[in-house]
Amino acid sequence: MRTFRLVIACPDGIGIVAKVSNFLATYNGWITEASHHSDSHSGWFFMRHEIRADSLPFDLDGFRQAFTPIAKEFSMEWRITDSACRKRVILMASRESHCLADLLHRWHSGELECDIPCVIANHDELRSMVEWHGIPYFHIPVEPACKSEAFAAITRLVREQSADAIVLARYMQILPATLCQEFAQRVINIHHSFLPSFVGAKPYHQASLRGVKLIGATCHYVTQELDAGPIIEQDVVRVSHRDRIEDMVRLGKDVEKMVLSRGLRYHLEDRVLVHDNKTVVFD
Amino acid sequence: MRTFRLVIACPDGIGIVAKVSNFLATYNGWITEASHHSDSHSGWFFMRHEIRADSLPFDLDGFRQAFTPIAKEFSMEWRITDSACRKRVILMASRESHCLADLLHRWHSGELECDIPCVIANHDELRSMVEWHGIPYFHIPVEPACKSEAFAAITRLVREQSADAIVLARYMQILPATLCQEFAQRVINIHHSFLPSFVGAKPYHQASLRGVKLIGATCHYVTQELDAGPIIEQDVVRVSHRDRIEDMVRLGKDVEKMVLSRGLRYHLEDRVLVHDNKTVVFD
Amino acid sequence: MRTFRLVIACPDGIGIVAKVSNFLATYNGWITEASHHSDSHSGWFFMRHEIRADSLPFDLDGFRQAFTPIAKEFSMEWRITDSACRKRVILMASRESHCLADLLHRWHSGELECDIPCVIANHDELRSMVEWHGIPYFHIPVEPACKSEAFAAITRLVREQSADAIVLARYMQILPATLCQEFAQRVINIHHSFLPSFVGAKPYHQASLRGVKLIGATCHYVTQELDAGPIIEQDVVRVSHRDRIEDMVRLGKDVEKMVLSRGLRYHLEDRVLVHDNKTVVFD
Amino acid sequence: MRTFRLVIACPDGIGIVAKVSNFLATYNGWITEASHHSDSHSGWFFMRHEIRADSLPFDLDGFRQAFTPIAKEFSMEWRITDSACRKRVILMASRESHCLADLLHRWHSGELECDIPCVIANHDELRSMVEWHGIPYFHIPVEPACKSEAFAAITRLVREQSADAIVLARYMQILPATLCQEFAQRVINIHHSFLPSFVGAKPYHQASLRGVKLIGATCHYVTQELDAGPIIEQDVVRVSHRDRIEDMVRLGKDVEKMVLSRGLRYHLEDRVLVHDNKTVVFD
Repeated sequence: MRTFRLVIACPDGIGIVAKVSNFLATYNGWITEASHHSDSHSGWFFMRHEIRADSLPFDLDGFRQAFTPIAKEFSMEWRITDSACRKRVILMASRESHCLADLLHRWHSGELECDIPCVIANHDELRSMVEWHGIPYFHIPVEPACKSEAFAAITRLVREQSADAIVLARYMQILPATLCQEFAQRVINIHHSFLPSFVGAKPYHQASLRGVKLIGATCHYVTQELDAGPIIEQDVVRVSHRDRIEDMVRLGKDVEKMVLSRGLRYHLEDRVLVHDNKTVVFD
Repeated sequence: MRTFRLVIACPDGIGIVAKVSNFLATYNGWITEASHHSDSHSGWFFMRHEIRADSLPFDLDGFRQAFTPIAKEFSMEWRITDSACRKRVILMASRESHCLADLLHRWHSGELECDIPCVIANHDELRSMVEWHGIPYFHIPVEPACKSEAFAAITRLVREQSADAIVLARYMQILPATLCQEFAQRVINIHHSFLPSFVGAKPYHQASLRGVKLIGATCHYVTQELDAGPIIEQDVVRVSHRDRIEDMVRLGKDVEKMVLSRGLRYHLEDRVLVHDNKTVVFD
Repeated sequence: MRTFRLVIACPDGIGIVAKVSNFLATYNGWITEASHHSDSHSGWFFMRHEIRADSLPFDLDGFRQAFTPIAKEFSMEWRITDSACRKRVILMASRESHCLADLLHRWHSGELECDIPCVIANHDELRSMVEWHGIPYFHIPVEPACKSEAFAAITRLVREQSADAIVLARYMQILPATLCQEFAQRVINIHHSFLPSFVGAKPYHQASLRGVKLIGATCHYVTQELDAGPIIEQDVVRVSHRDRIEDMVRLGKDVEKMVLSRGLRYHLEDRVLVHDNKTVVFD
Repeated sequence: MRTFRLVIACPDGIGIVAKVSNFLATYNGWITEASHHSDSHSGWFFMRHEIRADSLPFDLDGFRQAFTPIAKEFSMEWRITDSACRKRVILMASRESHCLADLLHRWHSGELECDIPCVIANHDELRSMVEWHGIPYFHIPVEPACKSEAFAAITRLVREQSADAIVLARYMQILPATLCQEFAQRVINIHHSFLPSFVGAKPYHQASLRGVKLIGATCHYVTQELDAGPIIEQDVVRVSHRDRIEDMVRLGKDVEKMVLSRGLRYHLEDRVLVHDNKTVVFD
C-alpha cells in the first residue's frame, strides 16, 4: 500500500496536532500510523504520520504547497515522502562480508524497500557476491598515498548515482569531513561496540581487556567527530570468560547485522528524526 | 504534574484524530503524551492522550459533558481519568512473598501511584511485612469446605473498600466466575509461565520436563477461562540444563516480579486497552 | 587447531572424572575445554572434553581402543570425534530463503565448520543462490500424489551423500517416520514459535490471535511426534499491538536464523547430548 | 545439602584436572558441580568443584592439609569453603532503598545464603526498614569535615563484625583506599551504568545526553581506581526518546537490583575468580 510520510519537528505548543490532523481530515487523509513525541527537556515536538496516498487529492508537490502555510505558522522542520519513491542507498564495504551479505539478502528478498545503485569497496573480495545480486561493484582502493583521490572518486560516484543515503557496512575507513557534511544525517555507520564505550579501533579487543559481560553494536549517523554522531539503534549480546576475542568477533557480527539492518529500516521508512545530536525513532 | 488521561477505542474512520485534537486545542489542552493505533485487522482505532489538567477549563465531569457528543458521533468506548485520583488496588497473596514484597516496596518508595486499602491472603505468613507498611492485612483462609463463604467474604471486602483493581500477587487460588465478571478487566494476575505454554499448575515442572531453554511469566487480566485472559505483559529468562526446578523457581521469581509490576503500572496509568481478548498497551 | 572431542553420558557415580582425566593425563592430553554436568534428577552424568589432537599419541581408532575399557566400566554412551573431519550436512529448504541464505553465508565465510554436499528443496526458487555457492541443488517436488516417491528419492540421496546431519531450514514438509528414525538426533528443525506454544501450522497467526507480547523460534531434533523433539536452542523477540502478522513474520525471521545457526553450531561441535527427550548443551 | 567448594587458579598445564579429580576420587568425594576454564590468552587455568561435605572424611582443615602438596606442585592460588559457614556481609546504603530492600528481601526469604551482621548508612531514612528485618542499623554520617573520622568508625565496625564482604548498595560515597585494600575482592559495588560508559557521577544524565538506546548497570569489585575494578555482572534495559531522565532512573533501578543480587550470589557461592582485573564467573 502506497503511503505518504509526513515528518515534522518544531517547537512545542498548543494546537499543532489539531492543525495537522484537521488539515489531513479536510482532505480525507486516511492515517494508517501516527506518532507524536513531546520532549519536555528541549521543548520540541516531533510527529510522524503515515497516510494512504490514494486517500489524498495531492501528489507530493501539491501536498507541499497546501501544507506550507501550516509549516510556517509553527516554524516546522518538515518533510513529506512517498513510499513509492524508493530511496537510493549506496553500500560501502571493505573485506568483511557479514553486514553486506545481510543487507543484500534483505534487499533481494524484498524486506528492505530501497534501490541499491552500487556497492563501493576498498577491496575486491566481495565483488562476486554483489554482482550475483545484479548490483554494480566499484573497487576504489584507499591507500594512504592516494586517499584524497580515492574519496574524490567516491564523492563523484555518490553524486552521479543521486544517492539518498550511504551505508558504511563495516567500511573501516574514516570518511572525509566534506562528505560527512554534504550527506549529513544520511551516512549511516555500524560501530562494533556499545557506544560510547570503546570508540575507535579494535573495540572487541578493548572489550576483552576490560572484561565486560556484554558486547554490543551501535548504528549511528556519521558526523565529523569519530563515533560520536546521533545513535539510531543499539543492541548487545552476553559474553563470558569463555569467549576469546575471536568468539566476541563472531558473536558481535550477529549483533552488528541486526542493529544495522534495523537502523537502516528506520531510516528508509522516515522514522528517524535528529535533534541535538540525539534521535527520535518512531518504530 | 496532574494530568487527565483520555482513552478511546472506536471503529476506525477518517477525522477521528482531527475531531479529538480540535476539541483539545479549542480548550487549550496541553497534550503531554499522545498515542494512536489503527488496527487494520479488526478495523478498530485506539487512542490515548495525556493532558495537563491545569491547562483545561474542566473537571472530569465537565470534560465528560463536553466530550460526549464527539464520543457518540464516533461510537467511542472511552474514559477520562485524573492522575490525582489514585486507583484503589487490593493485593491478594498466599505464602510466596516475592511479588507482594516487590509491589509494596514500589508503592512505599513512590514508584507505583495507587492506594492499597488492604492485602487479602489465604495464609497468615505475610502479615507482619504488610503491616510494617501500614496496610491492613486480612487473613481469609480458602479451605475446600468453606470456599464459597471465603469468596463471599472477599467479595464483600472488595466492595466495601471500593477497589478499582485487584492484583493476584501469586494468590494461587482460582477466583469465582462472579468476581471475575464483576471486576472484568480489573483483576490482574501473574502466571509463572510464558503463556500459552504451561497453563495451570506447576508450570516450572512442566517447563523442566519439556526441556525449554527460556522460562517466562505472563501478566494478564483474569477471565473465567483459566490463564486465557488478555495478556498485558510477558518476559522470559534463559535457563539451561544446569538449572533444576528449584533454580527455575528462583530465576522465575525475578521475571514474575518485573512482569507484574510493569503490567500493573500500565494499568494504573490507563495505558491498557482491551479488544477481542487482546491488549493495546501504549507504553 | 585440530582437536578431538570426547563426549560421554553415563549413570552418575564417584570416580568418573578421575578415571577419564587420568586417562587423558597419562597420554599427555592437552585439554582445551572441559564441561561436566551431573543431573541429580535423572542420576546421569554428562561430560565433554576438547583435547588438542597433536598432544595425543592416538588417531581416533587408537583412542577408541584405549578408552573402551573405561567406557565399559562405567556403562558409558560415548563418542570421540575429530574436528578435522568436517560433518557432512544436507540442507533442506522450500521457498523461504532467510534461513538457507544465513547458513550458506556462515558456511561460505568460514564460520560454520562443515561440508554441505547438497541442498534439497521442494521448489526451485532458491537454485541460483545455492549454486552461486558452488553447492549442488536438487529440486525434488513433494506433491500429495507422489509423496512417497519423493521421500524415497530424498532418502537415497541422503544415503549416497553420506550425510551426517540434515537441517530443515524452513522446509515446511513433515519427514516420514522412517527417515526420522534412521537419522535420529541428526535431523535439526527450526520451528517458528517458542515451543511448546503454537505447535504445527501458522504459528505467527496463532501468536497474533492469542495476543502474546513476545514471539520466538525453537531449534530441535526431529522426532516422529510433530514439534515435540528435544529442544536445542530457543530465543524470542518483543512484539506489540503495532505488529501485524506480516511484521511478526519479518521479526521472527531474524530469530529463526539466529536460533537455527546457534543450534547447528552446537551440533557440529558435538556440544549437544540428548537424554530423556531433553538436551544438555555445553556451550 | 552441605557442600565444600574448592576454587583454584594456577598456571595451565597437563595433569591438573587428573591430579585434583584423583585426589577427590581417592577420598570418595561426591562432586555435584565441576567447572573448568583454560584461558589461552593468559595461560592460566581456573577450576571450581562443589563436593558433598558428607562424602569426604575431612573437615576444612583436614582438607587443606591433605590438599596442600598438590596445590604447591601446581603453584595454585586456591581456597576451600564450607557452604555451612555462611559469609558475613555488611550492606552499606545511603538514601535510595531499592537495592537494599531487594537484598534484604532475598535474604529474608532464604534466597541469599549469608548473614547480615549490620547495615551501615550515611543517612537515617532506611533504619525502620532494616530494623524490621531484625538487623542492626548504624547511621554514620559522612560529612566533608569529618570524612576520615567516619571512615575510621566504619573500618572499626567492619573489623569488629568480622565481615567477609561489604556490599555498596548504592552507597554513593567513595571508600578510602585503605579500606579497598584491606578488603580487596570483597567490596562489591553496583554502578548505575553499563561500564566503561559513564564512569562517575550522574550516569543516567550522561546517558540521556548521549542519546543511547540501552542503559545498564554493572556489579564490580571495588578497587582504588573509580569504577574500574573487575566486572562481575552487567545487564541492560532498552530505553527510547520517550524516556526522560527520571524514567531512566526508574528503569535503571530494576537493572541495578538484578545485577547486584546476581553478582552477590556468585560471590557468596565462591563462583567468582579474579585474574588480571577480569573475572571468571562459574555460573
